[in-house]
Amino acid sequence: MSKRGLILVISGFSGVGKGTVVRRLMEAHDNYALSVSVTTRTPRAGEVHGKDYFFISEEEFSAMEAEGKLMEWAGYVGRHYGTPRDYVFERLEEGKDMILEIEVQGALQIREKYPEAILVFVAPPGAAVLKERLLGRGTESIEQVEKRLARAVEESGAMESYDYLLINDDLMTCVEELHQIARCEHRKMQVNRELMNDIKIDLKRFVEGE
Amino acid sequence: MSKRGLILVISGFSGVGKGTVVRRLMEAHDNYALSVSVTTRTPRAGEVHGKDYFFISEEEFSAMEAEGKLMEWAGYVGRHYGTPRDYVFERLEEGKDMILEIEVQGALQIREKYPEAILVFVAPPGAAVLKERLLGRGTESIEQVEKRLARAVEESGAMESYDYLLINDDLMTCVEELHQIARCEHRKMQVNRELMNDIKIDLKRFVEGE
Repeated sequence: MSKRGLILVISGFSGVGKGTVVRRLMEAHDNYALSVSVTTRTPRAGEVHGKDYFFISEEEFSAMEAEGKLMEWAGYVGRHYGTPRDYVFERLEEGKDMILEIEVQGALQIREKYPEAILVFVAPPGAAVLKERLLGRGTESIEQVEKRLARAVEESGAMESYDYLLINDDLMTCVEELHQIARCEHRKMQVNRELMNDIKIDLKRFVEGE
Repeated sequence: MSKRGLILVISGFSGVGKGTVVRRLMEAHDNYALSVSVTTRTPRAGEVHGKDYFFISEEEFSAMEAEGKLMEWAGYVGRHYGTPRDYVFERLEEGKDMILEIEVQGALQIREKYPEAILVFVAPPGAAVLKERLLGRGTESIEQVEKRLARAVEESGAMESYDYLLINDDLMTCVEELHQIARCEHRKMQVNRELMNDIKIDLKRFVEGE
């Protein structure tokens, strides 16, 4: 099984519960690490630099972008968000499977730049369930919920660019399915070229040494 | 999860234990069925037509080949062997994951004609272990075993055309890894286009009906 980590991109409609899926996955298995994004917005109460986000200036963000140090980035209400390449790649080298919980726009950038990345789309068992979950949060007005649902319709157009489709019906089932996807991806021939070559060399030497 | 069956091609060096892996997989899980090959050789004692092989004439074999009814075929010491397309596809439609336990030549034909097929290569934990297993059968001379090892060296050249690499060190671990590969492949977006479209339509109707 390949030892280098995988880039796992997790996307899904707002309210589908992908944050919870990712948190539970990391609690249950220690081979994962979550990417920490850079952002130019100001920290909210309780947010920790280097844990929730790396809070940087617009100038620093522009410099990172210009130097190719962002794997993907997006703008949202005048602020910028991005995935820092070095942070992710250092952990991949350590063998961590890096989880990028990002929106479809960012996921499509990753697909383009890192074809080896694995893109997983988490969908709800139905639109009505999605609405219930959004309302269940109790933090948003009905107008905000309807905006999120309308956005989900738009985002659904990008689903076919993903590698895998998971339905978050039962939380822990979804978590384990995601874990199995990562495990299977570690058995792909293309990430095991070193092992494959070791097998070839071992066989050849053994037969020649007979 | 997609309901149509998958084409699962399993190959590996002689002596690696792939027959046992496949048998145990089918005993443990009922979603699999094994493809039955056609052959022009005469049945051996105890072999059952339609179970071990479909025993057919050279004329019948040629006709099948000419009509495109063989998914792959090969000749071996003057006899022909092939995978009957209709037998496999009828069971795929029924939702069975069809296992084709075939050699690398046949696997490469499948790769070319059926790009959706999943190719799994089962390798031993080492060449010395492979030799032990071959000798452990107690059915072959040391010359025959050495011939098989030399053939393994040749076959190893085709490994990179496979999708997955499994190491058969512990039998039941290997069986479950194979099962997980099939399960994950059923979650691929490309085999879930119908479900994906259902999700899109459901979302759109729900939002428009609000």
